[in-house]
Amino acid sequence: MNQQNQQNCMVAQSGGPTVAINASLAGVISGVTKSKQYDTIYGSINGILGILHDNIQNLSELTANNPNALDTLKHTPAMFLGSCRFKLPDFLDDDSAYIYIFQKFESLNIKAFFYIGGNDSMDTVLKLSNYAKKIGSDIRIIGIPKTIDNDLMETDHTPGFGSAAKYIASSILEIAHDTFIYAVKSVTIIEIMGRDAGWLTAAAALARNEYSAAPHLIYLPEVAFDKDAFLQDVRRLLSTTNNVIIAISEGIHDADGNYISASESSTDTFGHSQLSGAGKCLEYMIKENINVKVRSVEINVLQRCAAHLASKTDLDESFLLGEKAVACAEEGITASMVNLVRTGNNPYTVTYGYAEIDAIANEAKSVPLEWISENGNDVTEPLLEYLRPLIQGEVPVTYKNGLPVYMNVSHLSHSKPLN
Amino acid sequence: MNQQNQQNCMVAQSGGPTVAINASLAGVISGVTKSKQYDTIYGSINGILGILHDNIQNLSELTANNPNALDTLKHTPAMFLGSCRFKLPDFLDDDSAYIYIFQKFESLNIKAFFYIGGNDSMDTVLKLSNYAKKIGSDIRIIGIPKTIDNDLMETDHTPGFGSAAKYIASSILEIAHDTFIYAVKSVTIIEIMGRDAGWLTAAAALARNEYSAAPHLIYLPEVAFDKDAFLQDVRRLLSTTNNVIIAISEGIHDADGNYISASESSTDTFGHSQLSGAGKCLEYMIKENINVKVRSVEINVLQRCAAHLASKTDLDESFLLGEKAVACAEEGITASMVNLVRTGNNPYTVTYGYAEIDAIANEAKSVPLEWISENGNDVTEPLLEYLRPLIQGEVPVTYKNGLPVYMNVSHLSHSKPLN
Repeated sequence: MNQQNQQNCMVAQSGGPTVAINASLAGVISGVTKSKQYDTIYGSINGILGILHDNIQNLSELTANNPNALDTLKHTPAMFLGSCRFKLPDFLDDDSAYIYIFQKFESLNIKAFFYIGGNDSMDTVLKLSNYAKKIGSDIRIIGIPKTIDNDLMETDHTPGFGSAAKYIASSILEIAHDTFIYAVKSVTIIEIMGRDAGWLTAAAALARNEYSAAPHLIYLPEVAFDKDAFLQDVRRLLSTTNNVIIAISEGIHDADGNYISASESSTDTFGHSQLSGAGKCLEYMIKENINVKVRSVEINVLQRCAAHLASKTDLDESFLLGEKAVACAEEGITASMVNLVRTGNNPYTVTYGYAEIDAIANEAKSVPLEWISENGNDVTEPLLEYLRPLIQGEVPVTYKNGLPVYMNVSHLSHSKPLN
Repeated sequence: MNQQNQQNCMVAQSGGPTVAINASLAGVISGVTKSKQYDTIYGSINGILGILHDNIQNLSELTANNPNALDTLKHTPAMFLGSCRFKLPDFLDDDSAYIYIFQKFESLNIKAFFYIGGNDSMDTVLKLSNYAKKIGSDIRIIGIPKTIDNDLMETDHTPGFGSAAKYIASSILEIAHDTFIYAVKSVTIIEIMGRDAGWLTAAAALARNEYSAAPHLIYLPEVAFDKDAFLQDVRRLLSTTNNVIIAISEGIHDADGNYISASESSTDTFGHSQLSGAGKCLEYMIKENINVKVRSVEINVLQRCAAHLASKTDLDESFLLGEKAVACAEEGITASMVNLVRTGNNPYTVTYGYAEIDAIANEAKSVPLEWISENGNDVTEPLLEYLRPLIQGEVPVTYKNGLPVYMNVSHLSHSKPLN
């Protein structure tokens, strides 16, 4: 086939890392390899910025040269293609980036563009779709969801969430073992990501088993945080339990919408005023009000990059969503995001579909209030039923010299810094 | 055999948790099961306090009722028998605790006492040994080392260290993937445990591979921390590298011996003055002096309890040290700690020996200065050669419903609180 007749496609990744976002990339590459319609797949490095900065890789060559590449890619954390936090302007205000992007698409014979990301990335999918429509381009533009926050609309859950949930629940079980050893009253606060959605913090409840009730309390951002009720909860538990473990969302806030965080100014030579997280703030609150040993643990970036403890369910679904995106583009679908539709819980089953992008971009899905206990300090059984299937199964991690083997990402260090 | 002629033994665990301390407990139980000399093995709950508080379990029954118990125990984090932070008084000042302990030993026909722990626990072994000698008791008293800090004398390395090192190196590799995705200059500081010894922080260097030089800088407490040199190191690296990752010990201090930590007072209603860690302090220091995105990550308790990512070498050695302790007691050895003697590096081999306890208790082993780079911001190849064998091999973790399966520790929640 000469270059004129080639039909190629392009993929990019954007937003915050998850353990599953490369599984979707592997799925897209696999889908294109199987496709009768697309020849070469290109990867744009650092999201949409790769197009704007002419930083584009031939991904078909990547897999042609390394037969194990797709499998290793599926298990590699974060983004093989790098990411960006770039918001396209409204093309009615400034269409220069759009003109450049669609010229690049034309010069590379791009017939489909796949963008793997979260809420902000779906905004990019929406804007590119609208621009394509405006200029009469038939390029298929498909979003592939990912976010550990699980807050995307129009999908039962998001790729990356199940693995983060599994890591958090496993880590909290291990922290419970760590905490239970001392016959001394103590409180351990575990701060979990998820921004303004409580899904990931709710997953902490999966750590409970026949010998451990940890986390004993769970606070989500969907319910206003009440300091007095919190201290009462902790005191009540300490009267019957030695070691109280509490899971809280980074995004908890009071009834007025103010985030629960301690604004601290250091008293030594490094005099910046710093905002510390909700966990630290609750640690101080307990120290101030209850005479008990207290510690806060911020699981931090590990919850989104610990690929050594991914959920097999999550990675398999993420891979198949990548393949589904290619199939959708082949069918002529555009301006859409592929999605997961749960069709059963016992046994757990999903189907792979798609939804129009304008119902998704710039929206966020919260934990329904009926899935939170009435007093706002725990989750209910229906939420646990929703969560349990998502952390099932372990992935075979390859180790070399005692460390997990992931894809070489040295190409990312060649990206020119933007600042 | 009637109760009069029984020869029993007892085991307890003390100090901070590791992933390997239950492997040594499993080794002791296994050794006693194989032993011709000892009948029943008892476990004292919460270290030596279990004897003082009459909180003692029959461990022979535990394994008799559950054939898989030893294997699950070997892989369970923290202490199945609980822990304590209790320092025995000098018996010349107050021998009441000693009288109670040795009466309890006599009433249970205890002929050997095994204490699994770190520096402070070896102080207990020393004191009990000295008291036994004074009263002419022939009870064998044997310490079994464990500490993630790797700072015990008279052993090549300590059980628990290799697993913590493997978790840290793997997590830093994953954090590198997480960090490299943005084409934006950034600094990530990772604070690692180890108190005044830099062994665990040095293990961060094992994360380096053919595509990642992270951690780019490593600061150990064995070398005085110099703020100006640090900022110069960071600036130099940022001139050639987008994302700089730095591993630091929690115990770094300046030339005058002052710990590097930011003393902060919160400016809201929770007005306690708080000491934040070295990582936070260096984060502030960089924010103050270099215009770059900066984040600090405290790996926290996860590095000592993440049994899902243990080193097989570590758990196997810990188990065999438990068996060795029983063999030593049978041979009449007392007032000693079993130890690991490295006999080769290529291939790695160790033998299992013992050393007299008075050379160990209350001492600490630092990283030799020749294993730290001259400018104090990295480690040298001989240290990496020492570390590499210790993280080799993975352990088969059993999962149920998506979570690791560990030993039921509900008996610990029955311990009466001490405060």
